[in-house]
This record gives sequence, C-alpha cells and structure tokens, in this order.
Amino acid sequence: MTEQLPPDVIAQLAALDSEITPQLAQASWALLTPFHEKAGYTAPKIDRDLAYGDDPRHRLDVHSDGDGDDQAGKPVFVFVHGGGFVRGDKHTQGSPQYDLVGAWAVRHGYVGVTMTYRLAPGHVWPAGAQDVAAAVGWLQRNIAAYGGDPGKIVVAGNSAGAVHVASYVAGQGGGDPARIAGAALLSGIYQIHDPAPGEPEHVYYGADPDPAASSLPGLLDTTVPLLFSVAERDPDRFQREAAGVVSAWLARHGTVPDLVWVEGHNHMSTIASLTVDEPALGTALARFVERHTSSADRETAQ
Amino acid sequence: MTEQLPPDVIAQLAALDSEITPQLAQASWALLTPFHEKAGYTAPKIDRDLAYGDDPRHRLDVHSDGDGDDQAGKPVFVFVHGGGFVRGDKHTQGSPQYDLVGAWAVRHGYVGVTMTYRLAPGHVWPAGAQDVAAAVGWLQRNIAAYGGDPGKIVVAGNSAGAVHVASYVAGQGGGDPARIAGAALLSGIYQIHDPAPGEPEHVYYGADPDPAASSLPGLLDTTVPLLFSVAERDPDRFQREAAGVVSAWLARHGTVPDLVWVEGHNHMSTIASLTVDEPALGTALARFVERHTSSADRETAQ
Repeated sequence: MTEQLPPDVIAQLAALDSEITPQLAQASWALLTPFHEKAGYTAPKIDRDLAYGDDPRHRLDVHSDGDGDDQAGKPVFVFVHGGGFVRGDKHTQGSPQYDLVGAWAVRHGYVGVTMTYRLAPGHVWPAGAQDVAAAVGWLQRNIAAYGGDPGKIVVAGNSAGAVHVASYVAGQGGGDPARIAGAALLSGIYQIHDPAPGEPEHVYYGADPDPAASSLPGLLDTTVPLLFSVAERDPDRFQREAAGVVSAWLARHGTVPDLVWVEGHNHMSTIASLTVDEPALGTALARFVERHTSSADRETAQ
Repeated sequence: MTEQLPPDVIAQLAALDSEITPQLAQASWALLTPFHEKAGYTAPKIDRDLAYGDDPRHRLDVHSDGDGDDQAGKPVFVFVHGGGFVRGDKHTQGSPQYDLVGAWAVRHGYVGVTMTYRLAPGHVWPAGAQDVAAAVGWLQRNIAAYGGDPGKIVVAGNSAGAVHVASYVAGQGGGDPARIAGAALLSGIYQIHDPAPGEPEHVYYGADPDPAASSLPGLLDTTVPLLFSVAERDPDRFQREAAGVVSAWLARHGTVPDLVWVEGHNHMSTIASLTVDEPALGTALARFVERHTSSADRETAQ
C-alpha cells in the first residue's frame, strides 16, 4: 500500500509542461501506466453500466472484491471524473482510466464507484451537480447489495468532477448532500466569475453565470467533511483556487482546511497516482475516508 | 513504516483542548508513548552531547544505525525542539522526547540529529538562529564520520524550533543556509508583530522587535526547499500563520507551498506522530527529505 514511483519517474513528471492539454494527459498517463499494469488496476469484480437515471450518461460502475460472503457495511468511494465539462468517461477500454480508482478503493477495503454524468454544451449548470445527486441517491438505495454501507458514502471529484461534487455538496443539485460521509475535491474550481469564451467554464456556466453558481459559500457552510487537494504542478488557476479556499476557510472557521498538496504531480497525474504513488495523495485520501466512515469518529466529531 | 494510531486514540487526541498548556503536552505524549514503546524509539546507536559550540546548550545527539561498515552519504535529518523559547531539550531521560525523532530518521535510512540551543530570557533573537547555523556548520564538518552526507542536510523545527529554523533559513543567524537541502517548518510563527507581555515571543523578541525579525520575507526569497505543516488542532495563532504563508507564497510564487495539514493532531502531538502515525506527517516528511536529497531531483529541480 505504500508503493512509490521511482525518483526518475517523478523527475520526468516534473519536467512536463504543466499546462492542461491532451499532450499532458497522454504523457502523464504514459509515464504511470506501466506501474498501474504492474500493480493491477481492476478490482476482482466490476459491475458495469448500472443506470442511475434516464440519460445514456447516467451510468456507474461498481467495483468490489467479489466475495459473495462479505459482510456488508463497507465505506463507498465514489469517483467523478474530469474533462472540462465536455468530455471524459468512467471507463476507457484497455486503460486504467478510471478502473484504477475503483481498484484503489477495493484495495483499501471500500466499495468503489466510478460514474459518468451529462456533458456540456447539451447540459449546463447545474446538470453535473444534479447527476451527482442522482447517483448518490441510487447508491443509497442500492449499494448494500454490493457490500457497501449507504451511510458511509464519500464522493470524490477531479477537475470538472470536483466542480460538480462541490456544487452538489453546496446544494445546487438537490438531493440530501448532508447525508454523505465526506467529499474530496481534487484540483477543482469553487469560485465562478464571468468566464471568457474558450475557458472551460464558459460552455457549462455560460458567459454570465448565476451569481449563486460559485460553490464556495456552500462549502464553507456545509457540515460534510471536506478534503481539498491541489497538485504541485497544477496551473495558476487551480493554485489560486486552493489558496482562496484556505483564506476563506480561515476567515470563516478560524482554521486551515484539510488540504493535500500533491507532491510532484500535475493536474492529470494526481488521480493516476493512486495505488502506484500512495504518499502523493492516496495515503491522505484513505485516511480521510476511514476517519469519516468509522464509528469512533462519528461519536466524537465536533 | 505505515503504522497508524487506532481510531479511538485519534478520537481521544481530538477530544483534548487545543490550547498549548503543560497539560496538553502531558496528555498528548501519554496517549502516544505506549505506541512509541511498542515501536521502539531509540536508534541502534546514539552519540550524545557532542559540542557544536561553547555554551552548555550547544549540544547535539547523533542517531545512527551503528553499522560501522555503512557506506557514507546518507541524508541527515536535524530536529530542533520547541518550548516557547524558554525551555525544552533534545532528550529527556526515559522518554521518547526526542530520541523518537532520531529513531524515525534512522528507520527511514537517514542519520538523525537532535539539538539544543540557548534559551530566552538569557539569550534573545537571533540567538536561536545563530545556534542552528552553528550546529549546521558543525555537521557539515563532522557528520561524514557518522555516515551522513554534509551536502544532504535537512533541518526541521517544531514550534519555537520552527521559528529558529525559519530565522536561520532567512539568513538571520549567519552561516550559509542556502547550502542545506531543505527545511521543514512544523507549526511555526513567521511574522513577528509587537508581542504583548506573556506571549511567548515577548521574552525572545522583546516588546518592540526589530522590523527585520519576521522570517517570512526571507522564506519567500530562499532557494532552500521548504515544507510547512500545521496541525488540525493547532491554536488560532498557528492556523493564521499557515494561511498567511499560503497567501504570501501565492502572491510571490503563483503557487501553493508544500503544506502538510496534520490530520487529527495538536500542537504537541504532531512530532509525537512520527513512526506511530506516519500518514499524519511522517509520510510526507520522508518524501520531502528523499526528494531533496536524491540526485535525480537535484538535476531537474527548477
């Protein structure tokens, strides 16, 4: 569980341009996939394409250890992928994207869930948050059959996926977000200004977003435990967002939020670090999940 | 290496009042010491009370694995204790304070060093920084004999110790801080305002500190790699300092600094987490040391 990447691979990662491009995604995954393959990136059992709604994108995969005689009641780790609001999938055939996340969850003793959601420009704000809410609702009704505890659901999102999870936690997508056990917001955007054409937010929020579209006020208000992360080599925009969360959190709560600085990684490689480079993110993420799904914590929290 | 505390111990830690008092120190160490004893908190070889200067407090202990046939060239991890500028020691007989830190370093493959320094009110700013500089100078000349590489010295400080290390890195204590491989600043204070009588800084900096006493400008300027940490249950003052570093770092460098949020721990238990609760701090701290003392990083850095 404490696999680390060799220093020369970290050095190669660090040498990549940090700008978010298809080339960065390709190069980052190419560097790490040999390690994913060596460690294994598929859980023993994957139930694919379960429908949590009517749209063809309302699908999720459940990753489990396949032991039929499991005692139920495991934490449930849900992953919402990124892709600039307009692309991305829960599963790409022959690739660790993102079965890896499900396999990571199962290794840690959780049930893993990877989900898709409706995309812009066909579906705009708050469609992503609504889809997260719908998926969580489906899991609350159905995950016990896969060994998961519906009261121990932690939802994680990366990039645009973090935007949707944050928006869901802030109540923009309906449902009952206060019932989840935690949310992990990896390299997300929480303050929406007026996006310029060409910026990823433009296609999802429009040129003149609803003033209520920023999730930050709702994140400051929520009782849901939150973990934030920013990659060492995340672009400026994400660095500013992370620092903005720290400032706003201090002003509101008098404390620094749970923030993981993902050492050595970039916007694309953060999630790819799971299993193969656990000290970067996985160690802290697993600790967050375990803390907020253990009975001891729930009795003494706050 | 991935020992974790049981959730009920974390819950007991979290239930302690976070105010910095002798009671908090006593209760925190009492909770963790059984785990230190189980894991072992002394390195195979400890060379005690080596003099790095003329004052009786100019002493350091070197912790090593005692293998005489070791190849030299290990990273050197130096620890500077806290104690409100007026107390504290590198070693308390029959206690893991702070042989534990030396033992942690040796487990990770480093040479460990624990050091004392002159105390206020007899010795005021910048005596602490001068003593860190003197100890580092001594180590640069002598640590090879203990298996350490004088070019791979990482200096860590906790609380008042972090203040002294930060001050040293900022150049306030003389020496040549740019030659160290990194500094870890755990729950420190980097901006010195006018301390009120009774505040710990008052006795060390006086009521009207030199405007140059704040280390933050120097920390923003240095080429020395820095890791900061703040404990989840650090008091307000330390929360504000950590958030202040994030803001200042963003303004200066456009990025978030390497900041470890020490989950579940308080001002006193942070350093006690080493070895027995590695995900809290030790995992990130070891990664920091290894990154900045490995050849691969040094070739590609910046």
